[in-house]
Amino acid sequence: MSLDKVLAHIDADQDAALNRLIDLLRIESISTDPAYATDCDKAADWLVDDLKSIGFDATKRPTPGHPMVMAHGDQQSGTHVLFYGHYDVQPVDPLDLWDNPPFDPQIEDTPNGKVLRGRGSSDDKGQLMTFVEACRAWKEVTGELPTKISIFFEGEEESGSPSLVPYMEANKDELKADVALICDTGMVERDTPSIVTMLRGLVGEQITITGPSKDLHSGMYGGPSINPIRVLTKALASLHDDKGAVTLDGFYDGVPELPANVAAQWKSLAFDPENFLKEVGLSVPAGEQGRSVLEQIWSRPTADVNGIWGGYTGDGFKTVLPSQAHAKVSFRLVGLQDPVKIRTAFRNHVNNHLPSDCTVEFHEHGGSGASNMAIDHPAFEAARGALSQEWANQGVFVGCGGSIPIAGHFQDVVGIESMLIGFAQDDDSIHSPNEKYDIRSFHKGVRSWARILAALA
Amino acid sequence: MSLDKVLAHIDADQDAALNRLIDLLRIESISTDPAYATDCDKAADWLVDDLKSIGFDATKRPTPGHPMVMAHGDQQSGTHVLFYGHYDVQPVDPLDLWDNPPFDPQIEDTPNGKVLRGRGSSDDKGQLMTFVEACRAWKEVTGELPTKISIFFEGEEESGSPSLVPYMEANKDELKADVALICDTGMVERDTPSIVTMLRGLVGEQITITGPSKDLHSGMYGGPSINPIRVLTKALASLHDDKGAVTLDGFYDGVPELPANVAAQWKSLAFDPENFLKEVGLSVPAGEQGRSVLEQIWSRPTADVNGIWGGYTGDGFKTVLPSQAHAKVSFRLVGLQDPVKIRTAFRNHVNNHLPSDCTVEFHEHGGSGASNMAIDHPAFEAARGALSQEWANQGVFVGCGGSIPIAGHFQDVVGIESMLIGFAQDDDSIHSPNEKYDIRSFHKGVRSWARILAALA
Repeated sequence: MSLDKVLAHIDADQDAALNRLIDLLRIESISTDPAYATDCDKAADWLVDDLKSIGFDATKRPTPGHPMVMAHGDQQSGTHVLFYGHYDVQPVDPLDLWDNPPFDPQIEDTPNGKVLRGRGSSDDKGQLMTFVEACRAWKEVTGELPTKISIFFEGEEESGSPSLVPYMEANKDELKADVALICDTGMVERDTPSIVTMLRGLVGEQITITGPSKDLHSGMYGGPSINPIRVLTKALASLHDDKGAVTLDGFYDGVPELPANVAAQWKSLAFDPENFLKEVGLSVPAGEQGRSVLEQIWSRPTADVNGIWGGYTGDGFKTVLPSQAHAKVSFRLVGLQDPVKIRTAFRNHVNNHLPSDCTVEFHEHGGSGASNMAIDHPAFEAARGALSQEWANQGVFVGCGGSIPIAGHFQDVVGIESMLIGFAQDDDSIHSPNEKYDIRSFHKGVRSWARILAALA
Repeated sequence: MSLDKVLAHIDADQDAALNRLIDLLRIESISTDPAYATDCDKAADWLVDDLKSIGFDATKRPTPGHPMVMAHGDQQSGTHVLFYGHYDVQPVDPLDLWDNPPFDPQIEDTPNGKVLRGRGSSDDKGQLMTFVEACRAWKEVTGELPTKISIFFEGEEESGSPSLVPYMEANKDELKADVALICDTGMVERDTPSIVTMLRGLVGEQITITGPSKDLHSGMYGGPSINPIRVLTKALASLHDDKGAVTLDGFYDGVPELPANVAAQWKSLAFDPENFLKEVGLSVPAGEQGRSVLEQIWSRPTADVNGIWGGYTGDGFKTVLPSQAHAKVSFRLVGLQDPVKIRTAFRNHVNNHLPSDCTVEFHEHGGSGASNMAIDHPAFEAARGALSQEWANQGVFVGCGGSIPIAGHFQDVVGIESMLIGFAQDDDSIHSPNEKYDIRSFHKGVRSWARILAALA
């Protein structure tokens, strides 16, 4: 049987697959910082070359931002799957907290087995390569792909995907498939493969509050001069009430209660909320009181300040009254919360805290609603069955607190459902220093896709 | 009469005096940043050499931080004055707001006359050189100084003066004089020479709040994980009530009401509060409601956040939940407010806002109470008379919102009164980009000291 030979080939080719991933990880494709634009382009080229080497018709597609990669396999029969991943990565600061340089990946032994450490190892280069390696194994063992496969990689996922929807609108026929496969999520437990069926949306805003026309000396002006940091902290501190709820007008419009059957399924998981928090040094859930930790992550909306700065932030002390203060704020959305209304409510909230002597500028950083998948599509049970064969535990349908707007775009723009299947672990430190990907996730991830492709064919 | 010849010499020597100041301004003596330690040392050497060239017995004195400069003139008769200034300067960020490099001083024409632009031109190198140039003129014209003069320069005034009090304690006999002269203040109006008799004190604190043990992805942890920026903004936003008053427990203990006669003198000044604010783009006094702008600057205490930072502050967007958030906070003190009690009240305030999952670290950045001068000392009226002869308007006794702790140390450690006489203007942009000193302030400042030395002799 072909699948067994393919799985055996994957096992034998493990080291070579890992070296290919390490090559890709060495490319510093940080999409949010314009200084790394050339590196993003290089990562796209690397993927085009690699896909061509296994028979894909692969091309780099320019956008106003970083390029897309589109590739089509030569197999024309079977279910048509469209695989999505992103080759861009998060910034690496604070750099001094990395044990090794973030773009010099290292294999390390840990109590949970070997890991590959480096920026993008889990999010998302390691994950997208699980699919590429599964295709390679099928091609090398059988001479052909098991089903009709298209591949779509973007390079702006970590910076709000400004080019994504225009590109998808312009290329919706080429993107059409029976189902989309997305590998950018994690496993709910170490050996429980997971298909994400609920995704939170995201609204990002940057604000700059200006008070005096220049930086002032607090000895000469302290008292009568308004301090924009004071205004900013008042506006941000009042985003949450004492019970962890968000105070914006109409914020909870469109937030559904969790259906009883889904709630029951989540309760059946072995997920340990105490341990989940303990692993990051915490013990008290900080979200809405009366909601479980899984609800707070998966099915409840949030507000968070992701960055704040103003005044003197260097060594020593400077008694400056700054002219400006800044913050980056984001909201995770669920259910039918409207990103446009949430953004407006936030801007109104800030304006309501603004004294007459201050001005505010808002800058939009992406916005997309939550996604809920139609799990009655037959591909969902087929994939869940394939995953259950590879891993110790049965596959499960779960939620995801992160925003993967692409799933919503596949529904809205292309008209296809997405299956979000990933092999990341909670301790992968994605977006943090010392990001890693378990070698086991990588290897069994490749094997999982080999099985899923056979099951969907 | 010698004084007339000295004044004429000052007029003739104006360009050379300016070039000497420019030499000193080229030295990048930023005391708060350890990267500039060598430059601070170089500034001290420059002053020692210059003072030696006009007959002072001048030496550089090591401290655990930047060195002091001590110098004694060879005239042994007359009132013994001790002059104080500081050769260190503020950091220059944000560098991109400077029209010229901050350490490449330029003379510019402005609607108010020529100015010398560059970091330290006003605070305090330009001011301290007014005194040195007055001494030089007396020496060059008459061959001797007009009275007994000692000079004391420090290099840590802009970074909390950590070495100052230990040095003064250890050298209090050498620092003993009849009166201290300090040139680090401004003129209340463009042509009204001012002697500062009230100075606000300062308490500086840096705080770091730690939540999760590492930076987290807000998709994976947003909701249950506490965000230290949220905690920080709640603690800082509650420092002021809706009427601009500071909310710390006991904050107003020891804050006196302004005596009626002083209040009357301040009201008689031509000071225009609307214009004062308008020059920096403001129109509404932001301090305690019901207090005049002059009270808010000179005789009322404040709380201000001078710097805040945490999370991702670069280009683009990063949905990080940071492990830490930081702020630099300062309090301007008046009357008998106790710096130790204010610091403790602030720390209690922050601790009261701290959830059980967060920790806080406090770092002290200097602390000193307010100073009130004994203006019945005869030197005050003598100096005021000399100033009134030089300038269009009569000299006045005023307050100062800034903290010049040295005046308090001269009282407490050495047991002498200080006269704070300076020639800075409100628009000098000290501590800001494009700092400048009026050429007129520099020139008439030198002439003022020449007159004051004669009057005190």
